[in-house]
Formats: sequence, structure tokens, C-alpha cells
Amino acid sequence: MRYELYYWPEIQGRGEFVRLALEEAGADYVDVARKGSGEDRMIGLMSKSRIKTPPFAPPFLRAGQLWIGQTANILAFLGPREGLAPRGEAGRLWVNQLQLTIADLVAEIHETHHPIGAAFYYEDQKKEAKRRAEDFRRSRAPKFLGYFEKVLKVSGGPHLLGRTLCYADLSLFQIVEGLRYAFPKTTRRLEKKIPRVVALHDRVAKRPRVAAYLVSERRIPFNQMGIFRHYKELDG
Amino acid sequence: MRYELYYWPEIQGRGEFVRLALEEAGADYVDVARKGSGEDRMIGLMSKSRIKTPPFAPPFLRAGQLWIGQTANILAFLGPREGLAPRGEAGRLWVNQLQLTIADLVAEIHETHHPIGAAFYYEDQKKEAKRRAEDFRRSRAPKFLGYFEKVLKVSGGPHLLGRTLCYADLSLFQIVEGLRYAFPKTTRRLEKKIPRVVALHDRVAKRPRVAAYLVSERRIPFNQMGIFRHYKELDG
Repeated sequence: MRYELYYWPEIQGRGEFVRLALEEAGADYVDVARKGSGEDRMIGLMSKSRIKTPPFAPPFLRAGQLWIGQTANILAFLGPREGLAPRGEAGRLWVNQLQLTIADLVAEIHETHHPIGAAFYYEDQKKEAKRRAEDFRRSRAPKFLGYFEKVLKVSGGPHLLGRTLCYADLSLFQIVEGLRYAFPKTTRRLEKKIPRVVALHDRVAKRPRVAAYLVSERRIPFNQMGIFRHYKELDG
Repeated sequence: MRYELYYWPEIQGRGEFVRLALEEAGADYVDVARKGSGEDRMIGLMSKSRIKTPPFAPPFLRAGQLWIGQTANILAFLGPREGLAPRGEAGRLWVNQLQLTIADLVAEIHETHHPIGAAFYYEDQKKEAKRRAEDFRRSRAPKFLGYFEKVLKVSGGPHLLGRTLCYADLSLFQIVEGLRYAFPKTTRRLEKKIPRVVALHDRVAKRPRVAAYLVSERRIPFNQMGIFRHYKELDG
């Protein structure tokens, strides 16, 4: 089956967590909004009520008759199907729990540059962003990253589940990549305390399909429109 | 089986979405942190590494050998088991998608009074909260509530899935309750445009188990510590 992924064509954003899973799985998929008039088609699908299970926002995935929205939900669907999550209930719940914690972290990362809301330009909330980013660097980032370090310790590594890769590993790789781009100084400092997370990142980066994807045109470069943005004044 | 729910004992917070599901299901459960030294036990469980699937934060649920964290994940587990979600994959995914959209709304509601971060007192981010809350009232709240109104229209109502109640209906009830408490003026205005959401709220409130729960001591009243807080200056 060919999957259809619908996501904003100019950013990695939340769609990237799905793209990484599809790429690692070697799945057959189209990144719809990146082709021709695909973005218009995506916007049209959201504004009309043709879909019985309408998405609130991208990303959403079409898999045959199914239309699935919300990043963690798409991954919960793809995981067991594409060999990126256990098939048993306990394992699926645990991977979903990890992914939802990553989603919370992603939301907090976005808030560092948009604390007053996505409706305002960064320039109109720069002062507030500085305060929020400082708290993120000092308190929230260490707490989240320390949590994943602990999970890797408890599992025995090298992956979050232990020996087997799951989609949350790919997402954690993306978190490290993004933090290095957005907060290079802070991340360099933080990485000293999370050797297991860094080792997992490096291991994921070397997986043949991931490595091929990262140098391909399918990988959109980091930029100042996505979740991870580099503003020098927000780094430590 | 007796479930053990672990959540902060003094607030509704995110735990309330789980409490409502357990109550509607008539499930056998203990709200651990609300009994004796239960809160210390909860904190101890989080700081040590005794749990193989450690939670990042409350709420978490113990169900026999399983320890499950993240609100939407707990509900995805309870739903099919307790008659609050379909058993089939497509139905489960859809309810989870709705719940994750509610979770996004909950996070944005929390940001209205803590845009600079949970580490700072409200008084130290009051000015910023006013700006963020204004955007929430004008743009975000109508967008989210309008989305759920559309879902109810597409499903035919009276529930999000149509004829059958699911746990996301209980959560949407809680959203309306909370918004009425936190933003009474704004919510009164918004409700005129979302008759289906209001009707669903009223229907849920009248369900015998929910109604009994709401007047019981198990229901913690809204207060100024949870997600939904009433600050007059943030209402429209």
C-alpha cells in the first residue's frame, strides 16, 4: 500500500517524525504537499468535510480507507505495521507513552520562540521568548533529556526498548538534531550528561535508510519557520 | 481488577480526564495520592527507577503488571477495555486522534496563564498572560471548539462517534466545564456558535455515574492551581 502523507512542504515540523518512520521502514509513500498542487489539495481536504475523521491540522496520513491525524497517532498506527513498534499491547503502550513525552517536549521547544502565541511574529515576542528560553535551557531541557537518559539506562540500551529499534528512537534522534541546530551552545553542554541519548542519536544517524534520507532532497533543511529555530539570543 | 491512579491530589488537572473515564465506566479504582501517604508514594515511584516503564510525570495508572503514563495513552488503554472506545483499530485511532487534539487544547489553555513557563508565578508573567489569553480567546479557542462542532456535525451526533459514547466525549465535557470556570464571559459568547458541543456537554453531565461523581467528594473543585484558572483580567 502506498501511504499519502500530508504536511506543510517547507518545514520539517511535526511531519518529520512521520517522515523518519516512513523512511526507516522503507515504506512506499508520497509527501503529497511537496508535489505540484499538493499543498492546495491538503488545505482543501481540511476546509471541507469530505473526510469522516477530519484532521484538526497537518500532519495527517492516508492509508487506504483510513485518514489518520495527530503525529503520535499516525506513528502508533505505522509502528506495529512497519516493524517500528512491538505488536503486543504492553509494548505498544510503552512506545506511545515515550512518543507522547517527546510530543510534550516538542511543544515546549516551540514555545521557546512563540511564548505569546503562533499568531504573532517572533520579533513581537522576542523579550518574552528570552525569558521562556532561559527556563527551557536551565530546567525543562535537562529534565526531559535526563528522563530519556534514565529510560535508556533502565532498558539497558542501546535503544529505548533495549535491543530493538522503535519509532520513538527515531523521534529522539530528531530531537537531538533539532536541539543542536536551535541551541548549539546549550546542547553541547547538556550532551555531556546524556551519553546514552547521544549514542542512540549517532546509532540512528548511521542506519542505512536514515543516512540516505538525511542527504537526500526529501530531507528539508532546518530553517527559521519550523519548530527548531536558531535565534542566537535564545541560546545559552 | 482494581486500577491505581496516581495524580496530584489537589487539582483536577490532566488526571481529571482519567478520573472521568474511570467514573463513567464504574471501574474499581483508587486515587492513590488522595489517601494517607499516597502522594509520597507517588513521588517515590517517580524518583526511583523501580518501574521498567517509568512515567515522566503524573498521571500514571497501574493496571496489574502494567504501569501506563501519559493521559491519552492511559485512556487509549482503558477505552476498549471499559466500553469507552470501539475495539476495532479504525475506531480506536479516531478516538485517540480526538483525544490528542483535546490534549493540544489543554496545553494551550495552560499556556494562557503561564506563557513564560510553569516555573514562574502567575504574578510574574501577568502582562504576558494577558496577551496570550487575548489570542486564545479570539483565535485559538474558537478554532478548537469549532473543530469539535464540525466533528459532531459530520458524525451526526449526539456524540463524537455518533450514537455511542467514548472517552473523548467525557474529555470534551470537561473542556466546556473548565472553560466556563476559567473564561466565563468568553465561553458564554463562544457557546452560541457551538450548539452541538454544548448539547454534548449537557448530555454527559446527566449521565447517572457522571452526575453522581460531580457532586461527590471525589470531584475536586476547580481552583487556582490547575489547568483551568479564573483570572478576571484574562477573560474577555
